[in-house]
Amino acid sequence: MTEAKIVKLEPEACCVDPEKVETATDRMLPVEEIAKLTELFKLFSDPTRLRILHALVEAGDLCVGDIAAVVGAPETSVSHALRLLRMAGVVRSRKDGRMAYYAIEDHHVRLVLDLAAEHLRHGDPG
Amino acid sequence: MTEAKIVKLEPEACCVDPEKVETATDRMLPVEEIAKLTELFKLFSDPTRLRILHALVEAGDLCVGDIAAVVGAPETSVSHALRLLRMAGVVRSRKDGRMAYYAIEDHHVRLVLDLAAEHLRHGDPG
Repeated sequence: MTEAKIVKLEPEACCVDPEKVETATDRMLPVEEIAKLTELFKLFSDPTRLRILHALVEAGDLCVGDIAAVVGAPETSVSHALRLLRMAGVVRSRKDGRMAYYAIEDHHVRLVLDLAAEHLRHGDPG
Repeated sequence: MTEAKIVKLEPEACCVDPEKVETATDRMLPVEEIAKLTELFKLFSDPTRLRILHALVEAGDLCVGDIAAVVGAPETSVSHALRLLRMAGVVRSRKDGRMAYYAIEDHHVRLVLDLAAEHLRHGDPG
């Protein structure tokens, strides 16, 4: 049996490092921002959407048919994925006649993908 | 009725911009890397795990109890989340006596989180 003391602790006493806990608590992102980030990363956690994003990062801008050709998915799936990505502000579209072209919304998205890939390579023990 | 021509097209003819399609196809990440990225972003798409990562980014390193205090989640949930994050190489742990301290594995993770948050702020029309 371990010695168990049930005592009412002050916050300072609960924590091993109350100063760090306070700093981290003060700087915690607001609930809404955490929720938005969760949604953003959920969008990124799908192979087709990741392939689409990577294609746009590499090609600059592409029409739906060309994206489908690169990622090897049906145009309907690609259109659906693009709609979600556009609604989330991850890609933007522009019309050129009857064609719609898609591109990454801003450079942060490119960097997020690059860094995540970099992290994987960095962490790969093999 | 639109005029529908069913013809067998050469790859060059299928695509609006065959050169871009070729570039993007050549540079596409391998299937295994897309799969790993998908898993990584899946880990990030959970509010508790995001809060834990943000706490570690801000505090440097923390023990389980202190992390639980910052994120406001039970220690069992935090331990479970930390185990997943550690297995994926996102956080690392070190023992100090009987205490285990957790920290972000490398600076890429911090940057991914920062950039994603930056993207949201950038894209926020409000």
